[in-house]
Amino acid sequence: MSYNLLKGKKGIIFGALNDKSIAWKVAERAVEEGAEIVLTNMAVSIRMGTINELADKCGAKVIAADATSVEDLENLFDETMKHFGGKIDFVLHSIGSSPNVRKSRTYDDLDYGFLQKTLDISAISFHKMIQVARKKDAINDWGSIVALSYIAAQRTLYGYNDMADAKALLESIARSFGYIYGREKKIRINTVSQSPTPTTAGSGVFGFDGLLDFADRMSPLGNATADDCADYVVMLFSDLTRKVTMQNLYHDGGFSSMGMSRNAMNVYNKSLEMEYNDVKHKEE
Amino acid sequence: MSYNLLKGKKGIIFGALNDKSIAWKVAERAVEEGAEIVLTNMAVSIRMGTINELADKCGAKVIAADATSVEDLENLFDETMKHFGGKIDFVLHSIGSSPNVRKSRTYDDLDYGFLQKTLDISAISFHKMIQVARKKDAINDWGSIVALSYIAAQRTLYGYNDMADAKALLESIARSFGYIYGREKKIRINTVSQSPTPTTAGSGVFGFDGLLDFADRMSPLGNATADDCADYVVMLFSDLTRKVTMQNLYHDGGFSSMGMSRNAMNVYNKSLEMEYNDVKHKEE
Amino acid sequence: MSYNLLKGKKGIIFGALNDKSIAWKVAERAVEEGAEIVLTNMAVSIRMGTINELADKCGAKVIAADATSVEDLENLFDETMKHFGGKIDFVLHSIGSSPNVRKSRTYDDLDYGFLQKTLDISAISFHKMIQVARKKDAINDWGSIVALSYIAAQRTLYGYNDMADAKALLESIARSFGYIYGREKKIRINTVSQSPTPTTAGSGVFGFDGLLDFADRMSPLGNATADDCADYVVMLFSDLTRKVTMQNLYHDGGFSSMGMSRNAMNVYNKSLEMEYNDVKHKEE
Amino acid sequence: MSYNLLKGKKGIIFGALNDKSIAWKVAERAVEEGAEIVLTNMAVSIRMGTINELADKCGAKVIAADATSVEDLENLFDETMKHFGGKIDFVLHSIGSSPNVRKSRTYDDLDYGFLQKTLDISAISFHKMIQVARKKDAINDWGSIVALSYIAAQRTLYGYNDMADAKALLESIARSFGYIYGREKKIRINTVSQSPTPTTAGSGVFGFDGLLDFADRMSPLGNATADDCADYVVMLFSDLTRKVTMQNLYHDGGFSSMGMSRNAMNVYNKSLEMEYNDVKHKEE
Repeated sequence: MSYNLLKGKKGIIFGALNDKSIAWKVAERAVEEGAEIVLTNMAVSIRMGTINELADKCGAKVIAADATSVEDLENLFDETMKHFGGKIDFVLHSIGSSPNVRKSRTYDDLDYGFLQKTLDISAISFHKMIQVARKKDAINDWGSIVALSYIAAQRTLYGYNDMADAKALLESIARSFGYIYGREKKIRINTVSQSPTPTTAGSGVFGFDGLLDFADRMSPLGNATADDCADYVVMLFSDLTRKVTMQNLYHDGGFSSMGMSRNAMNVYNKSLEMEYNDVKHKEE
Repeated sequence: MSYNLLKGKKGIIFGALNDKSIAWKVAERAVEEGAEIVLTNMAVSIRMGTINELADKCGAKVIAADATSVEDLENLFDETMKHFGGKIDFVLHSIGSSPNVRKSRTYDDLDYGFLQKTLDISAISFHKMIQVARKKDAINDWGSIVALSYIAAQRTLYGYNDMADAKALLESIARSFGYIYGREKKIRINTVSQSPTPTTAGSGVFGFDGLLDFADRMSPLGNATADDCADYVVMLFSDLTRKVTMQNLYHDGGFSSMGMSRNAMNVYNKSLEMEYNDVKHKEE
Repeated sequence: MSYNLLKGKKGIIFGALNDKSIAWKVAERAVEEGAEIVLTNMAVSIRMGTINELADKCGAKVIAADATSVEDLENLFDETMKHFGGKIDFVLHSIGSSPNVRKSRTYDDLDYGFLQKTLDISAISFHKMIQVARKKDAINDWGSIVALSYIAAQRTLYGYNDMADAKALLESIARSFGYIYGREKKIRINTVSQSPTPTTAGSGVFGFDGLLDFADRMSPLGNATADDCADYVVMLFSDLTRKVTMQNLYHDGGFSSMGMSRNAMNVYNKSLEMEYNDVKHKEE
Repeated sequence: MSYNLLKGKKGIIFGALNDKSIAWKVAERAVEEGAEIVLTNMAVSIRMGTINELADKCGAKVIAADATSVEDLENLFDETMKHFGGKIDFVLHSIGSSPNVRKSRTYDDLDYGFLQKTLDISAISFHKMIQVARKKDAINDWGSIVALSYIAAQRTLYGYNDMADAKALLESIARSFGYIYGREKKIRINTVSQSPTPTTAGSGVFGFDGLLDFADRMSPLGNATADDCADYVVMLFSDLTRKVTMQNLYHDGGFSSMGMSRNAMNVYNKSLEMEYNDVKHKEE
């Protein structure tokens, strides 16, 4: 269904890999809502994934760029403005990766070169893309910039490792730059703190399945899916949210405001009872 | 402009007094977006204000109800469902009043009968309306309930008095009931923490003009207006935000994430310099 | 062990019922640290509990007062100042009760007379005691006021019912009055958000045992006990924390900053596996 | 005055430059409270500042270390344990510096090499020191680690630049490592979010004087001084706070919970009136 919420708007979507990616869903929904888009990802991700399918479907141009490279970002914004014949209106940052996680370096044994990369890829790239856009005056007044985040920025989750710190940094950059870009050009910058989502990236996190189940039973509305997220992000790109900025917005079925639900407690208690019965057995 | 975001949806709007009211703007926008609505307020407010004009404009039915009276609320939901021939999809709670503020009782000299009324009118009424709606099963699955709040719930503002405590209670009720209504019927409940807004109610707060100026210069996007707020609330009623619940959503041009802006600091410093010059004068 | 942290200080402790009460532990520790105290509780709680034992042990006077009665509070502060021959330095508020919980009224079926009582007993009593103290100028400059709270004020916990809303209101009162009493008399007001604690009151909450276990396994340091809490509160009464005010301080072994721990996840997953095996069995 | 709160405890204090440094005050207070300490700073800061005076006064050993160098940190912990003949009990991290600020690179024109240094010096050094300490098992069970932070981690302040992002990262590291070190060794890790303080480092921030005045008038207890902070940190090192971890603790006279105070508003309004009178003059 389409409301034409983004009619006449143009934007760049970072981070679509395949049809499980949140960025993929956002791209589809943005186009459905009337937007024209450019898709971007690293050259290697373009080869590994299926972004060209998406581009065909969306009538979108694909421009390869490493989001940690200022030079690549400059080229991306130049090419995009050339392609559209003018400025853009929205940007989605959906990028994150931790070499420490991939190489199984635990948080008490981080490789600091890897940590630097985690932060550069997952957080500083956001600053770089905004700084480049601003220097090139590439975004129209009242434009909207969104990055995807996760509640690990506020609360520690076993196994999420240095990605938690990267997300905290990402959210801080949204605030810091949101102030500057807002007062100057009325451009808003927000992060969306999304439910755990079974994307290719998300599934790599240790113990992901159990966490997904727990989050789902804790959240009164259940986990928000990638499709739900696309709806929410489209809304943040639209003109209906023009005065919201520097916010981290939980899109998580209520998880962030839960201490304990009946559903999750039931599962937990079942295990406790079993344990208790085991102990009793042994004692008898 | 209309996107038909609320096409086929029905709702109740509490708290429109006159054309400065946020509830008034929400009513107009909801209807523009395709909704059918019922307007409600206390009988005395209906007489004092101009809600009937709004009703004419919106093709809306007006049903008088004191939101602190369970009986009135029961009648309101019954009549509304009769009027629409079925359930509703959204509710706006935009109600707040402090007898302590009106009678100039400062926070260190509260009348506790008045405090009870402040809480009943401004916060507990929200619980009552939801409890009544739920008992009557008056809201469709995936419906949306919104109440208007203010940052005084988190940070103390000189002169805001016991309304701060009422807003904290209101936001807590949104979370508590959001859990229950969410797990059961997928109905979401959120509060919108709006910029100070020069409504008839808002303007009554002591020192409002200075605060309005300060908030405007602190916020990179400036204060959000009642019109902006209507856009945001309509979006929260729409199907694009179905997985957002139990949240307090700042709609404030960035104010809540600011520590100090250049604009506000400039005003402040000018006064400091003047003070310093006065002192120097006297010393010379 | 004693550091003489409260040497020469005098205070009132509200809410000690028996030796499981946090207030009981705070009373003992405060006296160990050199303070003189007055103990207070409702007449009925004095009869039901064992507060007189504590009074003997601590050399403390017991003054009965219903904390919801301004008249009783006036008498309490008058008698206390007479007893000590002067002002006091600290107050502990450890009071909470919900008739809705006791009468098994669920949150979607609240009795509003009971709700009013829950709020009056558990939150507004805090305002009353501070307003009375201030009007009588009963607290020395740089004094310290503490109330006990719980994370339900921020995150919904199944079964905690309207106590969650009462705690949110309590924490708001601490901020609102903290501003006024701070600017005037340098008196600080804070809340301590304590781990679930197996007191007589706490144990009444539905499903308390499972929650206690979950919180303990989520918290890297384990749940904070009543004894731990007494240490922390004594510290907040001491001169080492004179610039901390209007804060809600988590004293919970880290629980509030956890999203998911390995220990809690292990218990949860065991139950999931069992469920999965059950399903498999049935399918085979 | 001394309570012997740290009797028998040993610790390392990072970041004392001169007698305006918060770390300097913490060192003095820790020793007053019975602790033995090692002082550390970069070789260049040791030469530029007066840390050796402090060492004499405190009977402390000085060990030079660049906190961004794992090798230096390894040597520091080895030498410290040799010096004390065993493990330590507490660590203070009071380190922060931004080459972008020093070179006047604004936040929309950051040098990314400098940003990396800001993060490394001000935040990642905290991870490095903890990781090294843990690998060497250098801290006793129930030890306490504190880092100094600032509210810029949550709210944007004009001119604070990339230090805001560094503080957000620092606070995240405290949570992430707090979980691991807590579950393993019961060691707690917290950050103290201190009022703006006129240290050598603090005074370098653009527009610092106006901000200091604003914060002071906003805070009901006034700004917390370096001496106040030392008291608070000592308390966090003591055994009275053993169950507090993964927290960011505001030590700021109430600033963080204020929206607007009468005192600050008066200054602000004076400037507004003046502006208004100027306009009137011109219009007449």
